[in-house]
Amino acid sequence: LVTHAVLPSWQNGATRTAIIDFLDRVDEIPPDERVAVFDNDGTMWCEKPNYPQLEFMLDELRHAVDADPSVAERAEFQAILAGDRDTIGQLGLERIALALVDLHAGLTPEQFNDRVARFFADARHPDRGVPYRQQRYQPMLELIDELRSRGFDVYIVSAGGAEFVRVIGGEFYDVKPEGVVGSQIDYEVGRTDDGALQLIRTGRLVAGGPNEGAGKPPNIQRLLGRRPVVAGGNSAGDAEMLEFAQAYDGPSLALLVDHDDAEREYEYASRAGTFDTDETILETAARLGWVVASIRNDWSTVFADS
Amino acid sequence: LVTHAVLPSWQNGATRTAIIDFLDRVDEIPPDERVAVFDNDGTMWCEKPNYPQLEFMLDELRHAVDADPSVAERAEFQAILAGDRDTIGQLGLERIALALVDLHAGLTPEQFNDRVARFFADARHPDRGVPYRQQRYQPMLELIDELRSRGFDVYIVSAGGAEFVRVIGGEFYDVKPEGVVGSQIDYEVGRTDDGALQLIRTGRLVAGGPNEGAGKPPNIQRLLGRRPVVAGGNSAGDAEMLEFAQAYDGPSLALLVDHDDAEREYEYASRAGTFDTDETILETAARLGWVVASIRNDWSTVFADS
Repeated sequence: LVTHAVLPSWQNGATRTAIIDFLDRVDEIPPDERVAVFDNDGTMWCEKPNYPQLEFMLDELRHAVDADPSVAERAEFQAILAGDRDTIGQLGLERIALALVDLHAGLTPEQFNDRVARFFADARHPDRGVPYRQQRYQPMLELIDELRSRGFDVYIVSAGGAEFVRVIGGEFYDVKPEGVVGSQIDYEVGRTDDGALQLIRTGRLVAGGPNEGAGKPPNIQRLLGRRPVVAGGNSAGDAEMLEFAQAYDGPSLALLVDHDDAEREYEYASRAGTFDTDETILETAARLGWVVASIRNDWSTVFADS
Repeated sequence: LVTHAVLPSWQNGATRTAIIDFLDRVDEIPPDERVAVFDNDGTMWCEKPNYPQLEFMLDELRHAVDADPSVAERAEFQAILAGDRDTIGQLGLERIALALVDLHAGLTPEQFNDRVARFFADARHPDRGVPYRQQRYQPMLELIDELRSRGFDVYIVSAGGAEFVRVIGGEFYDVKPEGVVGSQIDYEVGRTDDGALQLIRTGRLVAGGPNEGAGKPPNIQRLLGRRPVVAGGNSAGDAEMLEFAQAYDGPSLALLVDHDDAEREYEYASRAGTFDTDETILETAARLGWVVASIRNDWSTVFADS
């Protein structure tokens, strides 16, 4: 049994070879252009059976109802708490999501961060029973380590709320808060009773909407100020970000994680949707020549063990 | 003559003492809360007789007219090129500014960056005849060095265009592109003839408008994800940012640079304007207890010499 010194959790094969080939060409990329962006849900950590942020929101809803039972009377929350899929379908996912976001309207950023930290202190994955740290994908952690050792700056670009991801970005990925690009809440500038300035969360996203699909490349430019050369994703919401990296005039790596391992993780596929086609994201990857990481075949280890 | 090892370009006095007192209390601030933000124009480098970005825009206008003389026929550009203050006043500064921004509509971010780099390669300050590097304020460079040596992350938060400042942010301040918060251009996602994804600058700012005044604290939260504990500024457009730092629940430093040295730099004052008062920014500073750095009295050296 050979253990690789580089990318030890990646099995031999075309995918590992393509990644190593890219890493061997990094010298062709000027140092200040070594920018790598990774989606979070389903790319850096497991997003099933629910997005971790949804688990957080449900936990927050339970806390809110404990503190004030009348909260449960809101139609969206009634449906969620009852697991009433028909009503959830009738109300629509967007209205449900905005109702959950609204739970945190009025909080300062620090108060919100404390809520997220409270969640992660106790939360366990619903199926595996482990802390969310252990839902991180070990092969992806190895990849970002290799990129950093070659001078890359590594960023997280998630459709999730920026502030939610930032709370664990340092501990989970060694990414600073400004290195997380996510969906952005709108803030209001308020005053305390003493007249001190404070920021207050609203229940709205900033204009531009969620950070996904065709919204990711402009947000990368606006927040990070540089184009990616490496991009990792797993769904249609990452397609344009991977194309953005692939369009770099030099060596690039567009990496798609394929969730095809029902035994060790989950098996599911995302429709592309963001191109004017109905191809699956795997078909998009094949058409555009992205590198596809099959969890079943390319990863000898799936999860980080600590 | 005593030369201080710490902050050598700061004269003895109440201001230097207040800064040193703050630095001596940094241990009271948790490491991941050590966040410092500085305005750029008039705080980190000289903004007179014109904002450097305006000099850049005028240089760009001259290049554009050289390449295509019909550009000069646009009313806003006619007025600028003729120095026709009456017409400029009639058109209004916002319309003039947007016409200049429009010069770069259609460029990719890389093409825009090349234009900025071209400008800085040759540009000299109109009055002093030195490269813009030497328009940086030496005492402020010493302050950010001291903050960094105590574990601070240092960011630039400018009303100028984010991309403009990012081009020189690394060389001038050792700040990475994602560490620059500025006014944000809107981008469109386009395609090359080969179908490759590319970003294209528009002539519009993103919703929310320029990064100044009450816009700075929300943008700091959205882009950097943490509140400042140290903030430096010089005008009414920095007032809310300084208040934001000052509202930190622990030691903080809100520092206002006062341009009171007609001999070595310039003498001018900004009206506050952003509070519902007509007090000057110096009166605001006195009312709120900010630390004021008088260029004339507190700085033994004004400009970086290389």
